[in-house]
Amino acid sequence: MFEAEIDAGLLKECVEAIVAVVDEGKVRISDEDLNLRAVDPSNVAMVTFQLQRDAFDVYRFSNGDGAELEMGIDFPKLGGILGIGGREQVRLSVDDNVQKLNVQMGSLTYTVNLLDPSSLRKEPKVPELEFPVQVVIDTEEFRRTIRAAEKIGEHILFGVEGDEFYMEVEGEMDKLRLGMRKEQLIHLTPGTLHSLFTLDYISAMSKGMGHVDHITLNLGKNYPLQIEFEIADGKGKVSYLLAPRVE
Amino acid sequence: MFEAEIDAGLLKECVEAIVAVVDEGKVRISDEDLNLRAVDPSNVAMVTFQLQRDAFDVYRFSNGDGAELEMGIDFPKLGGILGIGGREQVRLSVDDNVQKLNVQMGSLTYTVNLLDPSSLRKEPKVPELEFPVQVVIDTEEFRRTIRAAEKIGEHILFGVEGDEFYMEVEGEMDKLRLGMRKEQLIHLTPGTLHSLFTLDYISAMSKGMGHVDHITLNLGKNYPLQIEFEIADGKGKVSYLLAPRVE
Amino acid sequence: MFEAEIDAGLLKECVEAIVAVVDEGKVRISDEDLNLRAVDPSNVAMVTFQLQRDAFDVYRFSNGDGAELEMGIDFPKLGGILGIGGREQVRLSVDDNVQKLNVQMGSLTYTVNLLDPSSLRKEPKVPELEFPVQVVIDTEEFRRTIRAAEKIGEHILFGVEGDEFYMEVEGEMDKLRLGMRKEQLIHLTPGTLHSLFTLDYISAMSKGMGHVDHITLNLGKNYPLQIEFEIADGKGKVSYLLAPRVE
Repeated sequence: MFEAEIDAGLLKECVEAIVAVVDEGKVRISDEDLNLRAVDPSNVAMVTFQLQRDAFDVYRFSNGDGAELEMGIDFPKLGGILGIGGREQVRLSVDDNVQKLNVQMGSLTYTVNLLDPSSLRKEPKVPELEFPVQVVIDTEEFRRTIRAAEKIGEHILFGVEGDEFYMEVEGEMDKLRLGMRKEQLIHLTPGTLHSLFTLDYISAMSKGMGHVDHITLNLGKNYPLQIEFEIADGKGKVSYLLAPRVE
Repeated sequence: MFEAEIDAGLLKECVEAIVAVVDEGKVRISDEDLNLRAVDPSNVAMVTFQLQRDAFDVYRFSNGDGAELEMGIDFPKLGGILGIGGREQVRLSVDDNVQKLNVQMGSLTYTVNLLDPSSLRKEPKVPELEFPVQVVIDTEEFRRTIRAAEKIGEHILFGVEGDEFYMEVEGEMDKLRLGMRKEQLIHLTPGTLHSLFTLDYISAMSKGMGHVDHITLNLGKNYPLQIEFEIADGKGKVSYLLAPRVE
Repeated sequence: MFEAEIDAGLLKECVEAIVAVVDEGKVRISDEDLNLRAVDPSNVAMVTFQLQRDAFDVYRFSNGDGAELEMGIDFPKLGGILGIGGREQVRLSVDDNVQKLNVQMGSLTYTVNLLDPSSLRKEPKVPELEFPVQVVIDTEEFRRTIRAAEKIGEHILFGVEGDEFYMEVEGEMDKLRLGMRKEQLIHLTPGTLHSLFTLDYISAMSKGMGHVDHITLNLGKNYPLQIEFEIADGKGKVSYLLAPRVE
C-alpha cells in the first residue's frame, strides 16, 4: 500500500524531468523514496531520478514482505492531468496489487491503469564512469544557449579549454559559441577536452530542468555527458546521461 | 430601424456564447430585447439567447407594423471583427430592409450583408422539459474539469448520487471523476440519476461561458442537459440544451 | 574594419523593419551610418533604411581607401538570434575582407558567413516621386485597421476625400472602412484621390513598425504609397515604397 500527498507543481516538475528522456518507466516505491532509472528507446540517453520521502507532506508505505513496489507509468498522460488547474495539493494512492494509480486534486480524482512493469524496457545498469571535468552553470544561461543553438545546427560541442567552458554549434553558414570563464561559472575544473552530442536530446533535457537554479555538467574527452540537478529543495535528484557522437 | 450602442466586450461575449452552438442564426429584434433560438447542424444542441434592451447604452427600435425585425448573422465573422482593438463602445445599426448590419467602433466601420433569414435552419421549438435535479456550480471548476476530461475520453457522465454531484469520463486506460458534495456547490437538489453526453458539445459550451461566475445545470435520468447562465449583469440570459447519448 | 555596440532590442527592430520587405540585402557601412536599399523578389515593394552612427554606443569604422563596406545579410537568421535572451547590449564586428559577421551578446558569440553582395538582387534606384497628399497617423490605429482588414479581403484602398483620410477593404459579403477626419490625425493634406494596394504587403510593413509612435503616409492618385517612420529616437529612418494595383 502506498499513499502520499505532495505539491502538484512539484510533482509536475518531477514528471517533466523524466519525460525529457522517456515516456514510460518503472517507478520504484520504497520506505525511503520514489526512484526510477530508464533509458530512451534509441539507447542513447538515460535518466536517473530520486525523490526522498521527506519531499512529501504525507508518505505512507507498507509492503508485507518489505520489498519495493513497482509502478509502470505513462508519464505524458500523468503530466497532462497534473497541468490542469494550477498548483495545489495532490494525493497519490496505489492499490495493493499495483494495478491502478489514484491521483486526487481537490474534488477531481484521476484513476489510471498502471503499465505492467514486465512489459517495459529493462532498467539500465548505470555504467561506471569517471568525469575529469565538472562545470556548474546557471540553468537559464544554459537553456537560452540551447534554444539559440536549435536555430543553427543539429550537433553541439561541449568542451573545456583551460579556464573556459564552451558550447559550440555549427550550421552550414554560421556558428554559435557560448564561452564562459571560470569566474562566470559557479564551478569549473580546468582542463582540455571536448565531446560532441546530438542537440535534440540536450534540448529535451533542458526542458526537463524546470525552475532549477543551476545544473552540474560532468564531462570527459569523447565521453558521455552527465547532467545533474536537484529538485524539491534538495530532497530530490535528477541525473541525465547522454552518449557522445563520434566526430 | 434599429440602432444601438453597447460595450464591445459585452457584445463579444454574447457572440461567443452563441458560437458555442451555431455559426449562423436569426437574431430577432423587438422593443424589449434581442433574442435568438437556434439548433446546431446535427440537431443535438440548442442555444436560446436573450439580451434585454437595458443592457444597451442606446437602444432605438421602430418598425412600422410593430413586428420584430429578423437579422440573419454569421457569428464567427462578427466575433472576429469585435475582437480587434480591445474593449470599447460599439454602435450597431440596421437599415430598414434589414439587408446590412453596420458595426461602428471608433473610426472603424464594418458593414456586413445579413443572411437571408429564410435560408437559415428553422428556429427550433423549445421542448417542454422537466428537470428533477438542479446543480449550481462555479464556472471555473466546471470548465477546468471539462478541460481535463478532454484529455481522457469522448463521452462524459453527469450525475447525482445522494448529496453528491459528479462528472465522469472514461478512457481506455484511465478515468477522471469530479465529485462535489452539496456544501461545495452553490446549490444541489439531491437525487439519484445520471445521463451521458458527447464531450465535444460540452467543451464548446464551456468556452461560451466567458467571465460568468456560476452556471446552472438542469439534469434528469437519461435526459437532456440544460445549462443556464446570466450575462450582462443579469440583463441577458443564455440557455444551452443538449440531447443525451444512449449508454 | 567595422566594430559597433548597440542595444539588442533596437537592432532587432531594425532587422524587423527590413524583413517586412526583404529576406536578404546589402547593408552599406560608411563613416556616417549603416544604410540599405532593397526591393522585394516580385519587384512590388522597396525598403530604404538608414541608421546613424550616433544610434550606436560604440561605432568604429575604417577602410583603407575611404570607401564603404558592403555586408550581404540574411535578415531572418540574424533576427532569430537577436531574439534570444531579451534586451541587452550586442557587439557587432566584421573582418577586413567582409566575409563574416560577428555578433556578441554577453558570453554568446554568433558568427555568420556574409552573403556575397554580387549574388544579391541589385539595389533599386529610388524613383523620383511627388506625393500630393501626406497623412500622419498613429501607428497603433493604422496597425489595428490592417489587422481587421486581413479578415475581410485581399486589397485595400487608401484615399483622401476632402478633410477625411480613409482605408477601405471589401470582401464578398462585407466591407471595412476606417475614416478619420483631419482633427483625428496628426497631419493631413486635404484632397481627393485614392489608390489600391495588395494587403499582404501592407500587413508585412505594419509588422515592421515595432514600437514606433506614428507613421507618415505619402499618397497620390493611382500612385505608389510611401510609408515613412523614424526609429532609434530619430537617429534612424525607414521608408517603404509600394506599387499600386490597377483597379
